[in-house]
Amino acid sequence: MPFVAFQRAGKAGWGVETAAGVVDLSARHGALFPSLREVIAGGALGRMAEAAAAAEMAADFAARDMAYAIPIAAPEKIICVGVNFPDRNAEYKDGQEAPPNPSLFVRFARSFVGHGQPLLRPPESAQLDYEGEIALVIGKAGRRIAEADAYDHIAGMTLANEGTLRDWVRHAKFNVTQGKNFDASGSLGPWLVPFADAAQLDDIALETRVNGEVRQTDRTARMLFSFRRIVAYVSTFTTLVPGDVILCGTPTGAGARFDPPKWLVPGDVVEVAAEGLGVLRNPVADEVPA
Amino acid sequence: MPFVAFQRAGKAGWGVETAAGVVDLSARHGALFPSLREVIAGGALGRMAEAAAAAEMAADFAARDMAYAIPIAAPEKIICVGVNFPDRNAEYKDGQEAPPNPSLFVRFARSFVGHGQPLLRPPESAQLDYEGEIALVIGKAGRRIAEADAYDHIAGMTLANEGTLRDWVRHAKFNVTQGKNFDASGSLGPWLVPFADAAQLDDIALETRVNGEVRQTDRTARMLFSFRRIVAYVSTFTTLVPGDVILCGTPTGAGARFDPPKWLVPGDVVEVAAEGLGVLRNPVADEVPA
Repeated sequence: MPFVAFQRAGKAGWGVETAAGVVDLSARHGALFPSLREVIAGGALGRMAEAAAAAEMAADFAARDMAYAIPIAAPEKIICVGVNFPDRNAEYKDGQEAPPNPSLFVRFARSFVGHGQPLLRPPESAQLDYEGEIALVIGKAGRRIAEADAYDHIAGMTLANEGTLRDWVRHAKFNVTQGKNFDASGSLGPWLVPFADAAQLDDIALETRVNGEVRQTDRTARMLFSFRRIVAYVSTFTTLVPGDVILCGTPTGAGARFDPPKWLVPGDVVEVAAEGLGVLRNPVADEVPA
Repeated sequence: MPFVAFQRAGKAGWGVETAAGVVDLSARHGALFPSLREVIAGGALGRMAEAAAAAEMAADFAARDMAYAIPIAAPEKIICVGVNFPDRNAEYKDGQEAPPNPSLFVRFARSFVGHGQPLLRPPESAQLDYEGEIALVIGKAGRRIAEADAYDHIAGMTLANEGTLRDWVRHAKFNVTQGKNFDASGSLGPWLVPFADAAQLDDIALETRVNGEVRQTDRTARMLFSFRRIVAYVSTFTTLVPGDVILCGTPTGAGARFDPPKWLVPGDVVEVAAEGLGVLRNPVADEVPA
């Protein structure tokens, strides 16, 4: 059963989404665990899942009666891996071989919305693009984690649409920060699916659709840098802590790849899907600046 | 009178550093304002400065009896501007003109230590380098802030040593994330100096010394992108919030610039100084991995 963070009646909460509806665990355990970040840090995902199973027949409300929020509202850090699938490296056409180490950049939580919320196209750019990805959520803190131990540090997974303003990615001489951090330009969700088994990650299908048309599709076994390698590499320089989110790269087929490019426009609906992780669906809307 | 964040007897606190010693305002106002971030968000820097002035003669302890912490322990974001002084752009020798927009990257709070704490050289790299900078701390939230209004959004300033592992900056194909984010590789402090007047920023001297030898020296009036332009540009894509920190770039003269390069080694002492902002001093030590 997947965990979910939500907004309802103006309040943030979290719980578990079951076949019978959402069990609002924040109503029962919110004092101890204000958000899923604290549940993870307290090593309590298993205990909370049991509590939800016991309460399932008394689900508190239907998922349609809440707004999905990003699973971890305020992670200490959100780290993104660039260029991690075959062909995608070739898209950069700079004649270089695949790099020896993953390229990394950072996004702020406010650049993401939850499942169902609109991705905002800002007035500064007409080049809003999608990137479907799998995101790891760290469960156990660690530095210099060995690849063999990497999965022990994962609390769960979610999906990401790592929405990007393409012209702003190359707005300056170095780094992609600004094109990756427009407020509400990407999404995370719908769920936090607890990690239990390597088969949930090692070779699963990942797909991105725009208005039902498949644009990106690949399998995680083909990633240039495996999930284990990513956790090991990132933790070489920074201490990973519970709730940290790592976005693991997108398959070939982003809108920028087409000639002419296929940018997202208001009214489009983008779906990111992966085996066992659900479907992250967001419409696109023009931002109306305040 | 400058604000200071500290660790003392195993507890985090904040106050004001006066000629008579440190006035521990967290002991008096900590329930309302757990950290300087909340003081700033509450618009209470002025009121707290008055409280400190009233209590100055009863200062609680000497600065030597505490450890300086970074001024904002957990900012929502720390954004860094790359290549922002003359000659430094030329150091990249790639034949390009100065870029039209600032290059930006992100650091995590745990990559910084406070004044007086050792900068750690990790076992993964012998290329620890210094970068003396001025950092803005945001006071008032805003998006798409006009340059003319930018200073209204600044709560104060601090100094930064934007310590960098040079080989890890180019470890992958794009972005500098990893070389800029080794735990405890940089520093922030010693103080948060409240912003009151444009003269505190517009044309002040900034200098970096290693073991007393001046390595970097320039004036903020020569920055390629002014403080006002940086605040306006960054807020185009992300909402700035109270406590956000923006590091505004370093003058020419980092250790990488010398032939052979002058990397920092254990025992070195690095000082970053700017008019009105004090001196940020840190020794260098080898990290001893856990």
